[in-house]
Amino acid sequence: MSQSRLTELTWREVRRAGEQGIAVLPIGSQEQHAGHLPMGTDTLLVEEVLDRALAVLDQEPSAPEVVRLPALPFGHSPHHLFAAAVSLSAATLGAVLDDVLDSLVTSGYRRVMVVNGHGGNDEIMRLAVKRFALRARVTVAACSYWTLTAGEDEAGRPDVTPGHAGWFETSLMLAARPELVRTPVPARTPVEPPPLFDHPPHPGLTVERHGEWERVDGSTDDASGADADRGGRLLDDRARGLARAIRAFDAASR
Amino acid sequence: MSQSRLTELTWREVRRAGEQGIAVLPIGSQEQHAGHLPMGTDTLLVEEVLDRALAVLDQEPSAPEVVRLPALPFGHSPHHLFAAAVSLSAATLGAVLDDVLDSLVTSGYRRVMVVNGHGGNDEIMRLAVKRFALRARVTVAACSYWTLTAGEDEAGRPDVTPGHAGWFETSLMLAARPELVRTPVPARTPVEPPPLFDHPPHPGLTVERHGEWERVDGSTDDASGADADRGGRLLDDRARGLARAIRAFDAASR
Amino acid sequence: MSQSRLTELTWREVRRAGEQGIAVLPIGSQEQHAGHLPMGTDTLLVEEVLDRALAVLDQEPSAPEVVRLPALPFGHSPHHLFAAAVSLSAATLGAVLDDVLDSLVTSGYRRVMVVNGHGGNDEIMRLAVKRFALRARVTVAACSYWTLTAGEDEAGRPDVTPGHAGWFETSLMLAARPELVRTPVPARTPVEPPPLFDHPPHPGLTVERHGEWERVDGSTDDASGADADRGGRLLDDRARGLARAIRAFDAASR
Amino acid sequence: MSQSRLTELTWREVRRAGEQGIAVLPIGSQEQHAGHLPMGTDTLLVEEVLDRALAVLDQEPSAPEVVRLPALPFGHSPHHLFAAAVSLSAATLGAVLDDVLDSLVTSGYRRVMVVNGHGGNDEIMRLAVKRFALRARVTVAACSYWTLTAGEDEAGRPDVTPGHAGWFETSLMLAARPELVRTPVPARTPVEPPPLFDHPPHPGLTVERHGEWERVDGSTDDASGADADRGGRLLDDRARGLARAIRAFDAASR
Amino acid sequence: MSQSRLTELTWREVRRAGEQGIAVLPIGSQEQHAGHLPMGTDTLLVEEVLDRALAVLDQEPSAPEVVRLPALPFGHSPHHLFAAAVSLSAATLGAVLDDVLDSLVTSGYRRVMVVNGHGGNDEIMRLAVKRFALRARVTVAACSYWTLTAGEDEAGRPDVTPGHAGWFETSLMLAARPELVRTPVPARTPVEPPPLFDHPPHPGLTVERHGEWERVDGSTDDASGADADRGGRLLDDRARGLARAIRAFDAASR
Amino acid sequence: MSQSRLTELTWREVRRAGEQGIAVLPIGSQEQHAGHLPMGTDTLLVEEVLDRALAVLDQEPSAPEVVRLPALPFGHSPHHLFAAAVSLSAATLGAVLDDVLDSLVTSGYRRVMVVNGHGGNDEIMRLAVKRFALRARVTVAACSYWTLTAGEDEAGRPDVTPGHAGWFETSLMLAARPELVRTPVPARTPVEPPPLFDHPPHPGLTVERHGEWERVDGSTDDASGADADRGGRLLDDRARGLARAIRAFDAASR
Repeated sequence: MSQSRLTELTWREVRRAGEQGIAVLPIGSQEQHAGHLPMGTDTLLVEEVLDRALAVLDQEPSAPEVVRLPALPFGHSPHHLFAAAVSLSAATLGAVLDDVLDSLVTSGYRRVMVVNGHGGNDEIMRLAVKRFALRARVTVAACSYWTLTAGEDEAGRPDVTPGHAGWFETSLMLAARPELVRTPVPARTPVEPPPLFDHPPHPGLTVERHGEWERVDGSTDDASGADADRGGRLLDDRARGLARAIRAFDAASR
Repeated sequence: MSQSRLTELTWREVRRAGEQGIAVLPIGSQEQHAGHLPMGTDTLLVEEVLDRALAVLDQEPSAPEVVRLPALPFGHSPHHLFAAAVSLSAATLGAVLDDVLDSLVTSGYRRVMVVNGHGGNDEIMRLAVKRFALRARVTVAACSYWTLTAGEDEAGRPDVTPGHAGWFETSLMLAARPELVRTPVPARTPVEPPPLFDHPPHPGLTVERHGEWERVDGSTDDASGADADRGGRLLDDRARGLARAIRAFDAASR
Repeated sequence: MSQSRLTELTWREVRRAGEQGIAVLPIGSQEQHAGHLPMGTDTLLVEEVLDRALAVLDQEPSAPEVVRLPALPFGHSPHHLFAAAVSLSAATLGAVLDDVLDSLVTSGYRRVMVVNGHGGNDEIMRLAVKRFALRARVTVAACSYWTLTAGEDEAGRPDVTPGHAGWFETSLMLAARPELVRTPVPARTPVEPPPLFDHPPHPGLTVERHGEWERVDGSTDDASGADADRGGRLLDDRARGLARAIRAFDAASR
Repeated sequence: MSQSRLTELTWREVRRAGEQGIAVLPIGSQEQHAGHLPMGTDTLLVEEVLDRALAVLDQEPSAPEVVRLPALPFGHSPHHLFAAAVSLSAATLGAVLDDVLDSLVTSGYRRVMVVNGHGGNDEIMRLAVKRFALRARVTVAACSYWTLTAGEDEAGRPDVTPGHAGWFETSLMLAARPELVRTPVPARTPVEPPPLFDHPPHPGLTVERHGEWERVDGSTDDASGADADRGGRLLDDRARGLARAIRAFDAASR
Repeated sequence: MSQSRLTELTWREVRRAGEQGIAVLPIGSQEQHAGHLPMGTDTLLVEEVLDRALAVLDQEPSAPEVVRLPALPFGHSPHHLFAAAVSLSAATLGAVLDDVLDSLVTSGYRRVMVVNGHGGNDEIMRLAVKRFALRARVTVAACSYWTLTAGEDEAGRPDVTPGHAGWFETSLMLAARPELVRTPVPARTPVEPPPLFDHPPHPGLTVERHGEWERVDGSTDDASGADADRGGRLLDDRARGLARAIRAFDAASR
Repeated sequence: MSQSRLTELTWREVRRAGEQGIAVLPIGSQEQHAGHLPMGTDTLLVEEVLDRALAVLDQEPSAPEVVRLPALPFGHSPHHLFAAAVSLSAATLGAVLDDVLDSLVTSGYRRVMVVNGHGGNDEIMRLAVKRFALRARVTVAACSYWTLTAGEDEAGRPDVTPGHAGWFETSLMLAARPELVRTPVPARTPVEPPPLFDHPPHPGLTVERHGEWERVDGSTDDASGADADRGGRLLDDRARGLARAIRAFDAASR
């Protein structure tokens, strides 16, 4: 068995799979995604990309053994609480990741990969991965699903990747879960100046201003032109990227 | 709309539902369940009971509005790490519950119910609920699915409720997810003395001994006689109990 | 010497007693107990029950060796701060119990028993005991004094056990420390609905509502009929129960 | 009523006393005190000094109202765990003091005094007092019982004040609780060099060396010449000092 | 006065400058930098870039008012402790940044900029900045000095930017503090495979392997060709970039 | 090389020096120092005393090897935030000290000395030093620069040592950094009663009153008579004291 869900395995199967396998943990969020996308968009999309990536690997000979953990449905979203979110603090999310990684090692794993669907989780995930690799004899990987395409892919990398509740995420949701997108998606009046967190005043500078998410009404760009077909190709590109990344991680960490 | 999933709602729908609705959070675990049940048994069963309870309510006139959160798939299972588990520490699980409750109130809810599938979460859930009700103008409820039947129900309350990976859980899993039960379930040689945590030497005394779970090989009682039919009736009883509990909580907390 | 107080022993005696003995830690609270009972009621009663239990054991041949720690006079009482309390947070009380248990093991003990006098300490005590048994090669027990009677005892188990500042606690205080009870105890007008924390709207459900303790004026039931004689018998029953529990713990944990 | 014990008051009396009164919290320790003194020496002595100080005040006209809290019987004694102790970590003890001070203010007090019996608690107590006075509109005092004599007193200030398990503490215990002192107290062979924590190599320097308490066998100086009569006078001096300090604090903090 | 050092100002000057000014906090590290660079390299370089940036601004009309804080000389360097480092944990560094930001706001500032010299601080700095902007009515910026050049600059962006103890940092140190570089810098034998943290096996993937820094002997690339002249131009480019970033932040956050 | 700065050493030099050397960490503060002294006064003075002490040692034969760490420029100054300060909480400063001490031991040191310039750091520094010596096989020292003179020194110990922003600190600053003292220093109207934290109502009592620093306008005594010449001699005395203390620590901890 080269792919399995941890939730469905007995503990002895979990142990056996840990000898050679890679444990994969998807993490997402529950947070406002403007008026047309559902709260769980980030969790739904990371699961979709992972589904497709594992389907790709499943077709390939000698794919690495993967044990998929249930997704953590909540992420770090304090900046969306002005509207609605179920958010873990940075300390809590870091503690959850520490505990999950610790548990996996105690249960016999030495290779773990965290696949992220929400920008706000990024730094916390990286810190957890670094901290853990110092503590235990493991190799740990982390990525966000939208960063994994390579140059040769067909759908390219839109300027607005990933943004928030904008063209990119809406296109992917139209492909993955169209029944959850409230259509027609209304056009968004441009906000001036654009959000500082998304358009810093100088390249390489991070700027955070109090109340900025509320000022820009919770999204980064106009989603009214979102396209299901383009979204499907973007999803497939990222799924192929993730499948390649899993293979590369497997090769590098044996 | 009287029942919905938070993950599928837009934030404005989440806010609107919060005015009158009850947010329901299922929590489970990923932990060894002997040789025949899967790691996610507690999460699967609490979701199953909640599914059935909401189906009951859905048939009834004037049922309370319920917003169901995605289940927290991980719980507090350090005592199962001798075999395999993905466990949150008590501090981490408490922090997750604090953050979820805080987020719900910030997002406009004033009534929340936690439905638990794993004994090891019990004290942490109670503490979180008490702490939160002191901090915010809310009414919060907590229960474990196996405690909610009332005397009049047909399937009764087996002595071994809930136990761990024994007759009760195995019967419920045979009813809910038979494809995940490894059968035939082997008979379990009685362990002498029985586990102290399950059979304290004096009524009313809690006793915890180092290594006890390992000594009794990870389960509390013989599951070889588990019965799908009885399991189904037990599930339905508990689902009806949960449906009644939701109604009663609604009436008491308006 | 089969019974001693840790505070009066030299350290070598403490070490020697730890080889075979059971360390017993009483924990209580300082919190409002309506208009007629003193702040320290829970601490006074747990000490009284322990005094009587040790007196029972002292009469018996081959009783286990017990080293009694000074009572922790403060507990977790945030719900009584609307009136008056000296309350430790759950985190603080948990840390105190962790430190005491750690110290006892470092000082040579491998069997510890916590005897509790205050309902609000219950979950914290259980978590501490479970956490500790995972960490060290020990057997640890925990109980609340009112849960330890067995069916054969004479005074029975009143419905209102233990309640708060009601008939049960008042009767026990009239027996144990009558000079500290302000009499006559006034009758309490029934509160409608009764407090949710004491009378949940569905069996098996825990419900906590903001402001509930203040709404019911800090007690659970009418204490005006409290009875010193009945209180004395209840105390003796619970003391005999605790003595039996100590013996049973001793036998189970050798 | 000018003096009372919080544990014996009803909550309304606690509130009323808080309007003008001073809450006094004694803190001690349970830790090795060489071969001749009991574990609870510091707690017993601080209670004894406080008993005597309150007896002094009780004789005086217009003494300030004092509400005495039950002593915290455990302190910060990690350096004594090589032998035996029940020790709270610095973080735990700090949290206990924070919680007690917070509770007292919430219960209506604005003047609190901590009276300490154990050197190892000193810095933690000071930090708690400073932290609290920044947070709430209160005046808070702290002292260790052995620092409070004034120059005019009869028994003077021995060089070895307070030391640990040496002449000073043994003399006081011979006066206060002679039945708990194992006599004759053996002479102590001088340790060379003397303990660095007690005899720093340069005035004004604090030096802590790993294993130092164990190297000097747990005491600072020879106790074999300890004297009950001198101990009684030292106790009375310190009690008078504490009585004066309470009066002075009262005058300064009205 | 348009530029000043907080350490040299009186508190009233600090308050006055806070009304319009930008507080700038440099953060660095003390950690192994291979055999030829000093422990404080990151701190020295971030201070050097900031010196030069402020010198640039000082020449310009209507430059924003800047209050420079003393550099935090320690950063998050646990991965360098295999050799030598003075490292703060992620939690500690986050707490330091929280406290500094809180203090600045309490002291009257509403615009703060953190300028970083050490890659390992990056995620912690970003989290602190985001957390703080949610908590207070401020605008906060963060950057690492090597990311701030713009396309038009002369010295370009070497592939090995910034690396660790390699060509880039060595060139900058040869320009800034040549007396602290041990020369000749020996050539570094290529390590195969190159360090996973620096050369992930798939673009967009973060991979951390236990022991990786030790395996590659503490540096990322060959520093033997480092060049003082090129280093000086790189420093000036980054200083001009930082000066522009300060101006841009000023304009965006007024 | 008998004296060096850690920031300028390569890691192998750091390791080598750790075998015999003493690591010295200066800690200071950034906080209001009335209208005439700069925020960094405490950091500047502790660095000045350490400079002079090391200059003294540098003249002497067989002085101990000293590795000087960069000063921690921030301390625990919450009581000065009413005016202006950059303050670390007690928990944060304690964590910084823990991490620095841990790092030094991991990097090969077994002797560390903390030299303090700010009264508010005192308890936190002592606790860190004690905690650390229990945890690792080290000898650790701590002092505040103003406590280290011995009786034979020429400049004596003024009554107002050290006070805050008064005669003592102003005199030292006039000697060490006269360009940073705003002169003439205005006379200070006596405050009645004098600050409780500096003039407790009873000897041996610590009293902290809310708002006290603001009430006395941020200083303890009149600085208008401060004297550069006397300040220089006081600095030299303390520097000689520190040099002697370093020697004594060296001798005691070999």
